[in-house]
Amino acid sequence: MSINPERYLKSLHDLRQFGASGIGKGVIRPAYSDTDIAARKWLADQMREAGLTPHFDPVGNLFGLADGPSILLGSHSDSQPEGGWLDGALGVMAALEVARSADVPVSVVSFQDEEGRFGVTTGSAIWSGNLSLEQAEGLKDHAGVPFAQARACLGDLAGEFVDPAQFSGYIEMHIEQGPTLDAEGEQIGVVTEIVGIRDMKITFDGQQNHAGTTPMHLRRDAFQALSAFNTELNDRFRNVVTPRTVWTIGHVSLHPNASSIVPGRVTFSMQWRDGDGDRLNRMEKIVRATASDIASKKAIEVGFGPLLGLEPVAMDMKLQAALVSAAEKVAPGKWRKMPSGALHDATNVAELMPVAMLFVPSIGGISHAFEEDTDEADLVAGLHVLSGAVNSLS
Amino acid sequence: MSINPERYLKSLHDLRQFGASGIGKGVIRPAYSDTDIAARKWLADQMREAGLTPHFDPVGNLFGLADGPSILLGSHSDSQPEGGWLDGALGVMAALEVARSADVPVSVVSFQDEEGRFGVTTGSAIWSGNLSLEQAEGLKDHAGVPFAQARACLGDLAGEFVDPAQFSGYIEMHIEQGPTLDAEGEQIGVVTEIVGIRDMKITFDGQQNHAGTTPMHLRRDAFQALSAFNTELNDRFRNVVTPRTVWTIGHVSLHPNASSIVPGRVTFSMQWRDGDGDRLNRMEKIVRATASDIASKKAIEVGFGPLLGLEPVAMDMKLQAALVSAAEKVAPGKWRKMPSGALHDATNVAELMPVAMLFVPSIGGISHAFEEDTDEADLVAGLHVLSGAVNSLS
Repeated sequence: MSINPERYLKSLHDLRQFGASGIGKGVIRPAYSDTDIAARKWLADQMREAGLTPHFDPVGNLFGLADGPSILLGSHSDSQPEGGWLDGALGVMAALEVARSADVPVSVVSFQDEEGRFGVTTGSAIWSGNLSLEQAEGLKDHAGVPFAQARACLGDLAGEFVDPAQFSGYIEMHIEQGPTLDAEGEQIGVVTEIVGIRDMKITFDGQQNHAGTTPMHLRRDAFQALSAFNTELNDRFRNVVTPRTVWTIGHVSLHPNASSIVPGRVTFSMQWRDGDGDRLNRMEKIVRATASDIASKKAIEVGFGPLLGLEPVAMDMKLQAALVSAAEKVAPGKWRKMPSGALHDATNVAELMPVAMLFVPSIGGISHAFEEDTDEADLVAGLHVLSGAVNSLS
Repeated sequence: MSINPERYLKSLHDLRQFGASGIGKGVIRPAYSDTDIAARKWLADQMREAGLTPHFDPVGNLFGLADGPSILLGSHSDSQPEGGWLDGALGVMAALEVARSADVPVSVVSFQDEEGRFGVTTGSAIWSGNLSLEQAEGLKDHAGVPFAQARACLGDLAGEFVDPAQFSGYIEMHIEQGPTLDAEGEQIGVVTEIVGIRDMKITFDGQQNHAGTTPMHLRRDAFQALSAFNTELNDRFRNVVTPRTVWTIGHVSLHPNASSIVPGRVTFSMQWRDGDGDRLNRMEKIVRATASDIASKKAIEVGFGPLLGLEPVAMDMKLQAALVSAAEKVAPGKWRKMPSGALHDATNVAELMPVAMLFVPSIGGISHAFEEDTDEADLVAGLHVLSGAVNSLS
């Protein structure tokens, strides 16, 4: 069967119907939600129709397996709490179209919880051994739901973990989720390395009290501690970071979160990313020292949650070369080599086999938002590069 | 019938059963919750047994009316999201015990939503005219529930507003909610004035994006704007405030509040209090200017919610004198005159009639928390001062 861009584009729109929300082509399909599970059942049917054997593992990673040895293509089909229609979904539907048409055996995967409801790329981290199932069971989402409870929704679907020895390598196609390709008018990015990431929750415990009667100098205000920590951290990072380093406080939970009460406790997320593992470690020391110094200065307690993280990962040279050749054929002069600032499942899969990645542009660099989108011409160019690279590997 | 401290203490414990929660003597009984309405129905029965006529007004303020002209005593029976057993409840149950035993006609009131689910002292603000019912209908709580919807739970209970002309004055007994009386080993505070308050919601709208691929210098991060605003505001306030001035960011709502997303929006509460109305106005100008400056510097939008506020209020000299005489009899040498740093319903009622207040100590100065408590001896001393003052007014 020959490759069919129309069928591939239609399948992306079909998948978007599971959790279609918000403006534009927005999607709400977080891991283990009803819509996520419904989408995975639909994907399993699509895999079966493509001649693959669908298989769910214990944490909800969904494989469409070819008979015998194969190359593995895919990404993830869960979304951010407010996400777009392409983040993850693109790589899964492109994989399925290539599996239908390739000259070589191709298996397909949709990893579970790449978006980190329970941490960081949870499903592929467990499959790869970067995170043990036992450790994972204790993880909780922001609402306090334990991972073990969330994955129980799989019920009878859940089978054994898949043996990675049957796969010769893994290629993941993804939107860039950054501004570079779009700004330069390019269609394809061949990824050279994926940056590393660290993510932890930090808690400041002060004293909850009345916002009218507690003098400022006697307060042990958890929000003021958070604000002082953030200001001080930005300052201390300056001598350590590069222009490519990023850090984010994206989740804040104040307690009791009422306008007339001095907040007694805050829990927040602290995440940082960089291509250099040593720099990530130096930043961790600064995070911990800054939080401890602020806590001590303000007479409050500080608590650190478990540190989740992944090291920077280089892409396999042979797979990269195959993508480069295909890119030059499909989009001559309109592709580049580039690092990935975003984390991907490929980071974990690199523990098990050679991996590579290719990017297509994100319009305006926007992702993790309803507005996320990519030109159809670029979506199709990516499909052709993936297909060309896979067929060159026989 | 003579005054009965045991009956009064028992009635406080009985009221606590509605919403008893958390550690110590904690209570969760927010305005218009099922437990709040159940407590008010129980209070109405208590009023009837004390010979008063219970009456709910359109917003859930509950009066126990004496026949003919009377003095009004009371406070509120709703609690903070996590509150103690005495904040408000004390003044209501003391009023009821004095109504049972006084030589003069006494009416009792429990105001609704003093704790500000929908703003600031909502029930007494509407009764006094400080807030029109029409304006109030549009107010929303932090979960987005409109006031009109919350008060609809009253159903057939809701009657007309009560005519304030029948009351010669209002006395409210309350816990201090601050550290002064407890630290000094005193039993009674006679309030001289209540500080004024301003409260508004502020929103920063930036750009939600991926936390791995968006370079720091291109971010429009709403949390970073909040932190910068807080730091700058603390600095700009320094030349304006006194040691008695307080300001608080107690509620923060980040959107979408996920660790891998640069937050695109934050809504937070900004509250400040002082005994000087001019200072409150100067602080408002600084709040608005600082937020606008930060928004402009960080290329984000700022939005200001409606400003809710109450002016500082002096207590009536005659009622104050009655409390002073009674305090000197009940607790000679162990009472003081003092301002109220906390806001109370008396602030609103002052629009309608002469008002006064008395405080009993808060152990450790703690309130708006489960741990809030007061020695029984001080609770009883307060009852005797209130009773003595009321009987001296005949």
